[in-house]
Amino acid sequence: MNLPNPDRTGVRALVFDVFGTVVDWRGSIVREGQALSAEKGWRVDWPAFADAWRAGYQPAMQRVMQAKASGETAWVKLDALHRGILDTLLPRFGLDRLSEAEREHLNLVWHRLDPWPDAVAGLTRLKARFPIATLSNGNVSLLVDMARRGGLPWDCVLSAELFRAYKPSPAVYRGAADLLGIAPGQLLMVAAHPSDLAAAQRAGLTTAYVERPLERGPDGARENSAGQRFDWVASDFVDLAVKLGA
Amino acid sequence: MNLPNPDRTGVRALVFDVFGTVVDWRGSIVREGQALSAEKGWRVDWPAFADAWRAGYQPAMQRVMQAKASGETAWVKLDALHRGILDTLLPRFGLDRLSEAEREHLNLVWHRLDPWPDAVAGLTRLKARFPIATLSNGNVSLLVDMARRGGLPWDCVLSAELFRAYKPSPAVYRGAADLLGIAPGQLLMVAAHPSDLAAAQRAGLTTAYVERPLERGPDGARENSAGQRFDWVASDFVDLAVKLGA
Repeated sequence: MNLPNPDRTGVRALVFDVFGTVVDWRGSIVREGQALSAEKGWRVDWPAFADAWRAGYQPAMQRVMQAKASGETAWVKLDALHRGILDTLLPRFGLDRLSEAEREHLNLVWHRLDPWPDAVAGLTRLKARFPIATLSNGNVSLLVDMARRGGLPWDCVLSAELFRAYKPSPAVYRGAADLLGIAPGQLLMVAAHPSDLAAAQRAGLTTAYVERPLERGPDGARENSAGQRFDWVASDFVDLAVKLGA
Repeated sequence: MNLPNPDRTGVRALVFDVFGTVVDWRGSIVREGQALSAEKGWRVDWPAFADAWRAGYQPAMQRVMQAKASGETAWVKLDALHRGILDTLLPRFGLDRLSEAEREHLNLVWHRLDPWPDAVAGLTRLKARFPIATLSNGNVSLLVDMARRGGLPWDCVLSAELFRAYKPSPAVYRGAADLLGIAPGQLLMVAAHPSDLAAAQRAGLTTAYVERPLERGPDGARENSAGQRFDWVASDFVDLAVKLGA
Protein backbone atom coordinates (compact mmCIF):
# COMPACT_ATOMS: atom_id res chain seq x y z
CA MET A 1 0.00 0.00 0.00
CA ASN A 2 1.12 3.57 -0.53
CA LEU A 3 0.00 5.54 2.48
CA PRO A 4 -1.26 8.95 1.45
CA ASN A 5 0.41 10.92 4.26
CA PRO A 6 4.00 10.06 5.09
CA ASP A 7 3.84 11.73 8.50
CA ARG A 8 1.31 9.14 9.60
CA THR A 9 3.90 6.43 9.11
CA GLY A 10 6.07 7.99 11.79
CA VAL A 11 9.15 7.45 9.64
CA ARG A 12 12.12 9.29 11.17
CA ALA A 13 15.07 7.97 9.17
CA LEU A 14 15.82 5.92 6.05
CA VAL A 15 18.38 3.16 5.58
CA PHE A 16 19.28 1.73 2.19
CA ASP A 17 20.44 -1.59 0.92
CA VAL A 18 23.31 -0.72 -1.41
CA PHE A 19 24.34 -3.48 -3.90
CA GLY A 20 21.64 -3.48 -6.55
CA THR A 21 19.46 -0.92 -4.76
CA VAL A 22 21.73 2.17 -4.87
CA VAL A 23 24.45 1.00 -7.24
CA ASP A 24 24.54 -1.12 -10.39
CA TRP A 25 27.06 -3.77 -9.35
CA ARG A 26 26.65 -5.92 -12.48
CA GLY A 27 26.92 -3.14 -15.03
CA SER A 28 29.86 -1.58 -13.17
CA ILE A 29 31.82 -4.84 -13.03
CA VAL A 30 31.11 -5.54 -16.69
CA ARG A 31 32.24 -2.04 -17.73
CA GLU A 32 35.45 -2.20 -15.71
CA GLY A 33 36.10 -5.75 -16.93
CA GLN A 34 35.64 -4.75 -20.55
CA ALA A 35 38.16 -1.94 -20.12
CA LEU A 36 40.59 -4.48 -18.65
CA SER A 37 39.96 -6.86 -21.58
CA ALA A 38 40.61 -4.09 -24.08
CA GLU A 39 43.85 -3.21 -22.32
CA LYS A 40 45.04 -6.83 -22.16
CA GLY A 41 43.61 -8.04 -25.46
CA TRP A 42 41.85 -10.90 -23.64
CA ARG A 43 38.36 -12.26 -24.31
CA VAL A 44 36.40 -12.68 -21.08
CA ASP A 45 32.66 -13.24 -20.57
CA TRP A 46 32.29 -10.39 -18.10
CA PRO A 47 28.52 -10.64 -17.54
CA ALA A 48 28.97 -14.33 -16.64
CA PHE A 49 31.95 -13.41 -14.46
CA ALA A 50 29.96 -10.75 -12.58
CA ASP A 51 27.06 -13.15 -12.06
CA ALA A 52 29.36 -15.91 -10.80
CA TRP A 53 31.09 -13.52 -8.39
CA ARG A 54 27.78 -12.35 -7.00
CA ALA A 55 26.52 -15.92 -6.76
CA GLY A 56 29.24 -16.69 -4.22
CA TYR A 57 28.09 -13.84 -1.98
CA GLN A 58 25.23 -15.37 0.04
CA PRO A 59 27.00 -18.71 0.69
CA ALA A 60 30.17 -16.89 1.82
CA MET A 61 28.22 -14.75 4.31
CA GLN A 62 26.38 -17.81 5.58
CA ARG A 63 29.71 -19.53 6.22
CA VAL A 64 30.86 -16.52 8.28
CA MET A 65 27.66 -16.56 10.34
CA GLN A 66 28.10 -20.30 10.97
CA ALA A 67 31.78 -19.89 11.91
CA LYS A 68 30.77 -17.05 14.21
CA ALA A 69 28.08 -19.17 15.87
CA SER A 70 30.57 -21.97 16.51
CA GLY A 71 33.14 -19.51 17.90
CA GLU A 72 35.58 -20.20 15.06
CA THR A 73 35.82 -16.57 13.96
CA ALA A 74 34.73 -13.16 15.26
CA TRP A 75 34.14 -11.59 11.86
CA VAL A 76 35.25 -11.55 8.22
CA LYS A 77 34.85 -8.39 6.14
CA LEU A 78 33.04 -8.54 2.82
CA ASP A 79 36.26 -7.45 1.06
CA ALA A 80 37.87 -10.71 2.21
CA LEU A 81 34.83 -12.76 1.17
CA HIS A 82 34.88 -11.14 -2.27
CA ARG A 83 38.56 -11.99 -2.59
CA GLY A 84 38.00 -15.62 -1.64
CA ILE A 85 35.27 -15.99 -4.28
CA LEU A 86 37.36 -14.14 -6.87
CA ASP A 87 40.30 -16.49 -6.36
CA THR A 88 38.10 -19.49 -7.17
CA LEU A 89 36.84 -17.80 -10.38
CA LEU A 90 40.13 -16.62 -11.86
CA PRO A 91 41.14 -19.83 -13.70
CA ARG A 92 37.63 -20.42 -15.03
CA PHE A 93 37.57 -17.02 -16.72
CA GLY A 94 41.18 -17.02 -17.88
CA LEU A 95 42.03 -14.35 -15.33
CA ASP A 96 44.80 -16.24 -13.53
CA ARG A 97 47.14 -14.30 -15.80
CA LEU A 98 46.55 -11.25 -13.57
CA SER A 99 49.33 -10.27 -11.16
CA GLU A 100 48.65 -10.16 -7.43
CA ALA A 101 48.39 -6.35 -7.55
CA GLU A 102 45.92 -6.60 -10.46
CA ARG A 103 43.85 -9.20 -8.59
CA GLU A 104 43.68 -6.97 -5.51
CA HIS A 105 42.71 -4.01 -7.68
CA LEU A 106 39.99 -6.06 -9.37
CA ASN A 107 38.71 -7.22 -5.99
CA LEU A 108 38.18 -3.61 -4.96
CA VAL A 109 35.89 -2.97 -7.96
CA TRP A 110 33.12 -3.33 -5.37
CA HIS A 111 34.37 -0.02 -3.91
CA ARG A 112 33.96 1.58 -7.36
CA LEU A 113 30.39 0.67 -8.32
CA ASP A 114 28.35 3.30 -10.15
CA PRO A 115 25.06 4.60 -8.70
CA TRP A 116 21.85 4.04 -10.65
CA PRO A 117 21.04 7.21 -12.62
CA ASP A 118 18.35 8.41 -10.17
CA ALA A 119 20.28 7.59 -6.98
CA VAL A 120 22.16 10.81 -6.21
CA ALA A 121 19.23 13.09 -7.10
CA GLY A 122 16.78 10.98 -5.14
CA LEU A 123 19.01 10.66 -2.08
CA THR A 124 19.74 14.39 -2.09
CA ARG A 125 16.03 15.12 -2.06
CA LEU A 126 15.28 12.53 0.63
CA LYS A 127 18.16 13.84 2.76
CA ALA A 128 16.58 17.28 2.89
CA ARG A 129 13.78 15.76 4.95
CA PHE A 130 15.16 12.59 6.57
CA PRO A 131 18.50 11.33 7.83
CA ILE A 132 19.72 8.79 5.25
CA ALA A 133 22.19 5.98 5.84
CA THR A 134 23.45 2.84 4.19
CA LEU A 135 22.53 -0.53 5.70
CA SER A 136 24.67 -2.88 3.69
CA ASN A 137 26.66 -6.06 4.03
CA GLY A 138 29.54 -4.14 2.48
CA ASN A 139 32.28 -3.19 4.94
CA VAL A 140 32.59 0.42 6.08
CA SER A 141 35.63 1.30 3.97
CA LEU A 142 33.95 -0.14 0.87
CA LEU A 143 30.87 2.03 1.48
CA VAL A 144 32.96 5.13 2.21
CA ASP A 145 35.04 4.72 -0.95
CA MET A 146 31.91 4.13 -3.03
CA ALA A 147 30.14 7.17 -1.60
CA ARG A 148 33.11 9.46 -2.18
CA ARG A 149 33.52 8.29 -5.76
CA GLY A 150 29.82 8.33 -6.64
CA GLY A 151 28.79 11.42 -4.67
CA LEU A 152 26.31 9.52 -2.48
CA PRO A 153 25.34 12.03 0.23
CA TRP A 154 24.90 9.69 3.22
CA ASP A 155 24.46 11.22 6.66
CA CYS A 156 25.96 8.09 8.11
CA VAL A 157 27.47 4.82 6.88
CA LEU A 158 25.94 1.80 8.63
CA SER A 159 27.22 -1.65 7.80
CA ALA A 160 26.85 -5.27 8.85
CA GLU A 161 30.47 -4.86 9.98
CA LEU A 162 29.36 -2.63 12.87
CA PHE A 163 27.17 -5.40 14.27
CA ARG A 164 29.38 -8.31 13.25
CA ALA A 165 26.35 -9.91 11.67
CA TYR A 166 25.32 -10.07 8.03
CA LYS A 167 21.80 -9.35 6.80
CA PRO A 168 19.29 -10.94 7.06
CA SER A 169 20.25 -11.22 10.76
CA PRO A 170 17.77 -9.15 12.81
CA ALA A 171 20.74 -7.73 14.77
CA VAL A 172 21.62 -5.60 11.74
CA TYR A 173 18.18 -4.01 11.31
CA ARG A 174 17.58 -3.47 15.03
CA GLY A 175 21.15 -2.30 15.55
CA ALA A 176 20.66 0.40 12.91
CA ALA A 177 17.53 1.72 14.63
CA ASP A 178 19.33 1.73 17.97
CA LEU A 179 22.32 3.67 16.58
CA LEU A 180 19.96 6.19 14.99
CA GLY A 181 18.19 6.59 18.34
CA ILE A 182 14.74 5.56 17.08
CA ALA A 183 12.35 2.64 17.39
CA PRO A 184 12.54 -0.05 14.66
CA GLY A 185 9.12 0.99 13.32
CA GLN A 186 10.35 4.55 12.81
CA LEU A 187 13.11 3.32 10.50
CA LEU A 188 12.32 2.84 6.81
CA MET A 189 14.40 0.18 5.05
CA VAL A 190 14.68 0.78 1.31
CA ALA A 191 15.71 -2.15 -0.88
CA ALA A 192 15.27 -3.73 -4.30
CA HIS A 193 15.20 -7.20 -2.73
CA PRO A 194 12.00 -8.57 -1.20
CA SER A 195 14.00 -10.99 0.98
CA ASP A 196 15.93 -8.11 2.59
CA LEU A 197 12.67 -6.28 3.23
CA ALA A 198 11.01 -9.40 4.66
CA ALA A 199 13.85 -9.69 7.19
CA ALA A 200 13.56 -5.97 7.98
CA GLN A 201 9.83 -6.43 8.57
CA ARG A 202 10.45 -9.34 10.91
CA ALA A 203 12.80 -7.05 12.88
CA GLY A 204 10.01 -4.46 13.12
CA LEU A 205 11.14 -1.96 10.47
CA THR A 206 8.96 -0.13 7.97
CA THR A 207 9.76 -1.04 4.35
CA ALA A 208 9.99 0.54 0.91
CA TYR A 209 10.43 -1.59 -2.20
CA VAL A 210 12.18 0.02 -5.15
CA GLU A 211 12.29 -2.25 -8.17
CA ARG A 212 15.59 -2.36 -10.07
CA PRO A 213 14.60 -4.41 -13.13
CA LEU A 214 18.09 -4.22 -14.66
CA GLU A 215 20.02 -5.38 -11.58
CA ARG A 216 20.79 -8.78 -13.13
CA GLY A 217 20.96 -7.53 -16.70
CA PRO A 218 18.26 -7.16 -19.36
CA ASP A 219 17.41 -10.90 -19.27
CA GLY A 220 18.27 -11.48 -15.63
CA ALA A 221 16.09 -13.21 -13.07
CA ARG A 222 14.10 -11.10 -10.64
CA GLU A 223 13.41 -12.01 -7.05
CA ASN A 224 9.75 -12.86 -6.60
CA SER A 225 7.83 -10.42 -4.40
CA ALA A 226 4.40 -11.99 -4.91
CA GLY A 227 2.31 -12.10 -1.78
CA GLN A 228 4.58 -9.70 0.09
CA ARG A 229 3.34 -6.34 1.32
CA PHE A 230 5.51 -3.26 1.67
CA ASP A 231 4.64 0.05 3.29
CA TRP A 232 5.84 1.87 0.19
CA VAL A 233 6.53 0.90 -3.40
CA ALA A 234 8.44 3.26 -5.70
CA SER A 235 9.88 3.05 -9.19
CA ASP A 236 13.12 4.82 -8.17
CA PHE A 237 14.51 7.12 -5.45
CA VAL A 238 13.04 10.29 -6.92
CA ASP A 239 9.63 8.61 -6.98
CA LEU A 240 10.21 7.52 -3.37
CA ALA A 241 11.01 11.12 -2.42
CA VAL A 242 7.77 12.28 -4.03
CA LYS A 243 5.78 9.59 -2.24
CA LEU A 244 7.35 10.47 1.11
CA GLY A 245 6.71 14.16 0.55
CA ALA A 246 10.43 14.94 0.56
CA MET B 1 56.93 19.16 13.87
CA ASN B 2 55.27 20.17 10.64
CA LEU B 3 56.47 17.79 7.97
CA PRO B 4 57.04 19.61 4.68
CA ASN B 5 55.42 17.00 2.46
CA PRO B 6 52.15 15.46 3.59
CA ASP B 7 52.53 12.49 1.26
CA ARG B 8 55.54 11.38 3.25
CA THR B 9 53.38 10.95 6.32
CA GLY B 10 51.37 8.26 4.56
CA VAL B 11 48.14 9.74 5.93
CA ARG B 12 45.15 8.12 4.21
CA ALA B 13 42.20 9.34 6.31
CA LEU B 14 41.40 11.87 9.02
CA VAL B 15 39.28 11.42 12.14
CA PHE B 16 38.19 14.30 14.32
CA ASP B 17 37.42 14.76 17.95
CA VAL B 18 34.15 16.70 17.96
CA PHE B 19 33.26 18.45 21.27
CA GLY B 20 35.55 21.46 21.43
CA THR B 21 37.51 20.55 18.30
CA VAL B 22 34.77 20.83 15.64
CA VAL B 23 31.97 22.48 17.62
CA ASP B 24 31.82 25.15 20.30
CA TRP B 25 29.93 23.25 23.02
CA ARG B 26 30.24 25.96 25.66
CA GLY B 27 29.18 28.90 23.51
CA SER B 28 26.32 26.89 22.02
CA ILE B 29 24.94 25.84 25.41
CA VAL B 30 25.26 29.40 26.73
CA ARG B 31 23.45 30.83 23.68
CA GLU B 32 20.61 28.33 23.87
CA GLY B 33 20.39 28.79 27.65
CA GLN B 34 20.19 32.55 27.34
CA ALA B 35 17.34 32.22 24.84
CA LEU B 36 15.56 29.95 27.33
CA SER B 37 16.17 32.46 30.16
CA ALA B 38 14.76 35.27 28.05
CA GLU B 39 11.66 33.22 27.28
CA LYS B 40 11.10 32.22 30.91
CA GLY B 41 12.28 35.42 32.58
CA TRP B 42 14.71 33.43 34.75
CA ARG B 43 18.25 34.40 35.74
CA VAL B 44 20.65 31.51 35.25
CA ASP B 45 24.47 31.52 35.19
CA TRP B 46 24.70 29.70 31.87
CA PRO B 47 28.50 29.71 31.52
CA ALA B 48 28.79 28.10 34.97
CA PHE B 49 26.00 25.68 34.03
CA ALA B 50 27.79 24.64 30.80
CA ASP B 51 31.07 24.18 32.65
CA ALA B 52 29.43 22.10 35.38
CA TRP B 53 27.68 19.90 32.80
CA ARG B 54 30.90 19.29 30.95
CA ALA B 55 32.77 18.65 34.22
CA GLY B 56 30.56 15.62 34.81
CA TYR B 57 31.52 14.12 31.43
CA GLN B 58 34.84 12.36 32.14
CA PRO B 59 33.75 10.84 35.47
CA ALA B 60 30.50 9.56 33.91
CA MET B 61 32.38 7.83 31.07
CA GLN B 62 34.86 6.36 33.53
CA ARG B 63 31.96 4.89 35.50
CA VAL B 64 30.63 3.24 32.33
CA MET B 65 34.03 1.75 31.51
CA GLN B 66 34.31 0.41 35.08
CA ALA B 67 30.78 -1.03 34.99
CA LYS B 68 31.60 -2.61 31.63
CA ALA B 69 34.81 -4.14 33.00
CA SER B 70 32.91 -5.68 35.91
CA GLY B 71 30.18 -7.00 33.60
CA GLU B 72 27.51 -4.77 35.15
CA THR B 73 26.54 -3.09 31.89
CA ALA B 74 27.25 -3.55 28.18
CA TRP B 75 27.10 0.13 27.26
CA VAL B 76 25.52 3.49 28.11
CA LYS B 77 25.12 6.13 25.41
CA LEU B 78 26.47 9.63 25.98
CA ASP B 79 22.91 11.01 25.70
CA ALA B 80 22.02 9.03 28.84
CA LEU B 81 25.19 10.16 30.63
CA HIS B 82 24.41 13.79 29.77
CA ARG B 83 20.90 13.34 31.13
CA GLY B 84 22.17 11.86 34.38
CA ILE B 85 24.54 14.80 34.91
CA LEU B 86 21.85 17.31 33.92
CA ASP B 87 19.43 15.92 36.48
CA THR B 88 21.95 16.52 39.27
CA LEU B 89 22.49 20.13 38.10
CA LEU B 90 18.88 21.26 37.68
CA PRO B 91 18.15 22.28 41.31
CA ARG B 92 21.50 24.05 41.69
CA PHE B 93 20.80 26.31 38.71
CA GLY B 94 17.09 26.86 39.44
CA LEU B 95 16.17 24.74 36.43
CA ASP B 96 14.04 22.20 38.27
CA ARG B 97 11.12 24.37 37.16
CA LEU B 98 11.50 22.85 33.67
CA SER B 99 8.94 20.22 32.61
CA GLU B 100 10.09 16.73 31.66
CA ALA B 101 9.72 17.57 27.95
CA GLU B 102 11.79 20.74 28.45
CA ARG B 103 14.48 18.81 30.33
CA GLU B 104 14.70 16.27 27.54
CA HIS B 105 14.88 19.05 24.96
CA LEU B 106 17.65 20.76 26.94
CA ASN B 107 19.54 17.47 27.22
CA LEU B 108 19.61 17.21 23.44
CA VAL B 109 21.33 20.61 23.11
CA TRP B 110 24.46 18.47 22.59
CA HIS B 111 22.89 17.46 19.23
CA ARG B 112 22.58 21.16 18.33
CA LEU B 113 26.08 22.52 18.93
CA ASP B 114 27.41 25.08 16.47
CA PRO B 115 30.61 24.44 14.49
CA TRP B 116 33.58 26.75 15.01
CA PRO B 117 33.61 29.37 12.21
CA ASP B 118 36.36 27.63 10.19
CA ALA B 119 35.04 24.09 10.60
CA VAL B 120 32.78 23.61 7.57
CA ALA B 121 35.16 25.36 5.15
CA GLY B 122 38.17 23.47 6.47
CA LEU B 123 36.44 20.08 6.46
CA THR B 124 35.12 20.64 2.94
CA ARG B 125 38.62 21.34 1.75
CA LEU B 126 40.15 18.39 3.61
CA LYS B 127 37.39 16.09 2.29
CA ALA B 128 38.40 16.84 -1.29
CA ARG B 129 41.66 15.01 -0.58
CA PHE B 130 41.04 12.66 2.35
CA PRO B 131 38.14 10.68 3.76
CA ILE B 132 37.03 12.52 6.91
CA ALA B 133 35.13 11.05 9.85
CA THR B 134 34.18 11.89 13.39
CA LEU B 135 35.82 9.98 16.23
CA SER B 136 33.85 11.15 19.20
CA ASN B 137 32.48 9.92 22.49
CA GLY B 138 29.12 11.31 21.33
CA ASN B 139 26.63 8.65 20.25
CA VAL B 140 25.90 8.14 16.57
CA SER B 141 22.49 9.85 16.54
CA LEU B 142 23.97 12.88 18.34
CA LEU B 143 26.70 13.17 15.71
CA VAL B 144 24.25 12.68 12.82
CA ASP B 145 21.86 15.34 14.14
CA MET B 146 24.76 17.74 14.71
CA ALA B 147 26.18 17.20 11.23
CA ARG B 148 22.81 17.69 9.52
CA ARG B 149 22.14 20.89 11.45
CA GLY B 150 25.63 22.35 11.09
CA GLY B 151 26.39 21.14 7.56
CA LEU B 152 29.43 19.09 8.61
CA PRO B 153 30.34 17.06 5.51
CA TRP B 154 31.53 13.81 7.13
CA ASP B 155 32.19 10.83 4.90
CA CYS B 156 31.41 8.61 7.84
CA VAL B 157 30.30 8.97 11.46
CA LEU B 158 32.51 6.98 13.83
CA SER B 159 31.70 6.96 17.52
CA ALA B 160 32.80 5.35 20.78
CA GLU B 161 29.35 3.75 20.63
CA LEU B 162 30.44 1.52 17.73
CA PHE B 163 33.23 0.03 19.85
CA ARG B 164 31.41 0.12 23.18
CA ALA B 165 34.42 1.86 24.63
CA TYR B 166 34.97 5.54 25.40
CA LYS B 167 38.09 7.42 24.45
CA PRO B 168 40.87 7.30 25.64
CA SER B 169 40.47 3.51 25.29
CA PRO B 170 42.84 2.28 22.54
CA ALA B 171 39.98 0.15 21.16
CA VAL B 172 38.35 3.33 19.82
CA TYR B 173 41.39 4.59 17.92
CA ARG B 174 42.40 1.19 16.56
CA GLY B 175 38.80 0.30 15.78
CA ALA B 176 38.48 3.44 13.64
CA ALA B 177 41.55 2.51 11.58
CA ASP B 178 40.22 -1.03 11.14
CA LEU B 179 36.81 0.19 9.94
CA LEU B 180 38.50 2.56 7.50
CA GLY B 181 40.62 -0.33 6.21
CA ILE B 182 43.98 1.26 7.00
CA ALA B 183 46.84 0.83 9.46
CA PRO B 184 46.72 2.96 12.64
CA GLY B 185 49.72 5.00 11.46
CA GLN B 186 47.85 5.95 8.26
CA LEU B 187 45.05 7.52 10.29
CA LEU B 188 45.43 11.14 11.39
CA MET B 189 43.59 12.03 14.60
CA VAL B 190 42.71 15.73 14.81
CA ALA B 191 41.88 17.16 18.24
CA ALA B 192 42.11 20.26 20.40
CA HIS B 193 42.95 18.14 23.44
CA PRO B 194 46.50 16.91 24.04
CA SER B 195 45.23 14.05 26.22
CA ASP B 196 43.09 12.70 23.34
CA LEU B 197 46.08 12.93 21.01
CA ALA B 198 48.38 11.25 23.53
CA ALA B 199 46.00 8.28 23.68
CA ALA B 200 45.79 8.23 19.87
CA GLN B 201 49.59 8.19 19.70
CA ARG B 202 49.77 5.28 22.15
CA ALA B 203 47.37 3.41 19.83
CA GLY B 204 49.71 4.09 16.91
CA LEU B 205 47.85 6.92 15.16
CA THR B 206 49.35 10.04 13.61
CA THR B 207 48.23 13.25 15.30
CA ALA B 208 47.28 16.84 14.50
CA TYR B 209 46.77 19.39 17.26
CA VAL B 210 44.41 22.27 16.52
CA GLU B 211 44.26 24.76 19.33
CA ARG B 212 40.80 26.06 20.26
CA PRO B 213 41.70 28.80 22.72
CA LEU B 214 38.06 29.78 23.32
CA GLU B 215 36.76 26.28 24.08
CA ARG B 216 36.35 27.04 27.79
CA GLY B 217 35.50 30.70 27.32
CA PRO B 218 37.72 33.79 27.13
CA ASP B 219 39.18 33.17 30.61
CA GLY B 220 38.94 29.39 30.58
CA ALA B 221 41.66 26.95 31.44
CA ARG B 222 43.59 25.28 28.66
CA GLU B 223 44.90 21.76 28.73
CA ASN B 224 48.69 21.75 28.98
CA SER B 225 50.46 20.37 25.93
CA ALA B 226 53.99 21.15 27.11
CA GLY B 227 56.47 18.42 26.29
CA GLN B 228 54.09 16.68 23.89
CA ARG B 229 54.95 16.29 20.23
CA PHE B 230 52.39 16.14 17.45
CA ASP B 231 52.92 15.30 13.79
CA TRP B 232 51.03 18.44 12.81
CA VAL B 233 50.03 21.65 14.56
CA ALA B 234 47.48 23.97 12.99
CA SER B 235 45.63 27.09 14.08
CA ASP B 236 42.33 25.92 12.60
CA PHE B 237 40.96 23.46 10.00
CA VAL B 238 41.69 25.69 7.02
CA ASP B 239 45.28 25.99 8.20
CA LEU B 240 45.37 22.19 8.62
CA ALA B 241 44.14 21.78 5.04
CA VAL B 242 46.91 24.08 3.81
CA LYS B 243 49.52 22.18 5.81
CA LEU B 244 48.30 18.83 4.48
CA GLY B 245 48.27 20.14 0.91
CA ALA B 246 44.49 19.69 0.65
